[in-house]
Amino acid sequence: MPGEPISKRRSGCPVSVALDILGDRWSLLIIRDLMVRGLKTFKDFQESGEGIASNVLADRLLKLQAAEIILAEADEADGRRANYRLTEKGIALAPVLLEMLIWGARHEQTGASCALIEKLAKNRDAVLAEARRRWEQRDSTPLIPMFDEGK
Amino acid sequence: MPGEPISKRRSGCPVSVALDILGDRWSLLIIRDLMVRGLKTFKDFQESGEGIASNVLADRLLKLQAAEIILAEADEADGRRANYRLTEKGIALAPVLLEMLIWGARHEQTGASCALIEKLAKNRDAVLAEARRRWEQRDSTPLIPMFDEGK
Repeated sequence: MPGEPISKRRSGCPVSVALDILGDRWSLLIIRDLMVRGLKTFKDFQESGEGIASNVLADRLLKLQAAEIILAEADEADGRRANYRLTEKGIALAPVLLEMLIWGARHEQTGASCALIEKLAKNRDAVLAEARRRWEQRDSTPLIPMFDEGK
Repeated sequence: MPGEPISKRRSGCPVSVALDILGDRWSLLIIRDLMVRGLKTFKDFQESGEGIASNVLADRLLKLQAAEIILAEADEADGRRANYRLTEKGIALAPVLLEMLIWGARHEQTGASCALIEKLAKNRDAVLAEARRRWEQRDSTPLIPMFDEGK
């Protein structure tokens, strides 16, 4: 049984259970970096733009591994370095992230252009299929640009 | 400009901005209670099953109002009592919640039956349209059942 034991959970509601795992300000950003930005090392995540503290990052990486959302693989060139990768359960979060992206861009001032967001919203299935293809083929070309500060 | 000032934000990425507002274990549960369970008072949320502490609940309600995701209306019968209601920006979170529900139910042990979840996943558009209709018409019939403890 993956994740926290049932007895520690607040309820049997799937939204509540998902938030027991993902309900903080950082976990979904690490998942975003892995999913659409092609980042994969501790250093990559640290330099990803939001300024996560290294102790918080280390904690979240362990929790995401315990929840079987990500796994750590030894780097081929340097076996002491870990490359993180989403599991099947992790890539299955793509629709959650996409809907959060669309909602954030439509309802808050962000660095995403309206044209890009409406294109993503109109082509949800294709965007999700492409995210999954890149994950399957270990293609780390960024899918979504880095966004500048909100204009 | 709704929400936190840009300068306080971690980045211009819409996912990051959304998590600045919603990235905790409780906010999306309050939104769930309003959206699909027909709950609307402080007491309703307190008794909703996950056991939120009243100071945390009060804090989240204020933050969600500041972000213009919910608003408080005086109760018709008892003007001192507030009924909370989602705004347009709040009901627009329905796809985020639905995807989180589907992910949680498929990948963790929860109280949701597989049959219900696959039905919701197959009829996403209809489910979202129905959630919006209930919101527009102030129809507080629960849309999704309370889930028992995970089996």
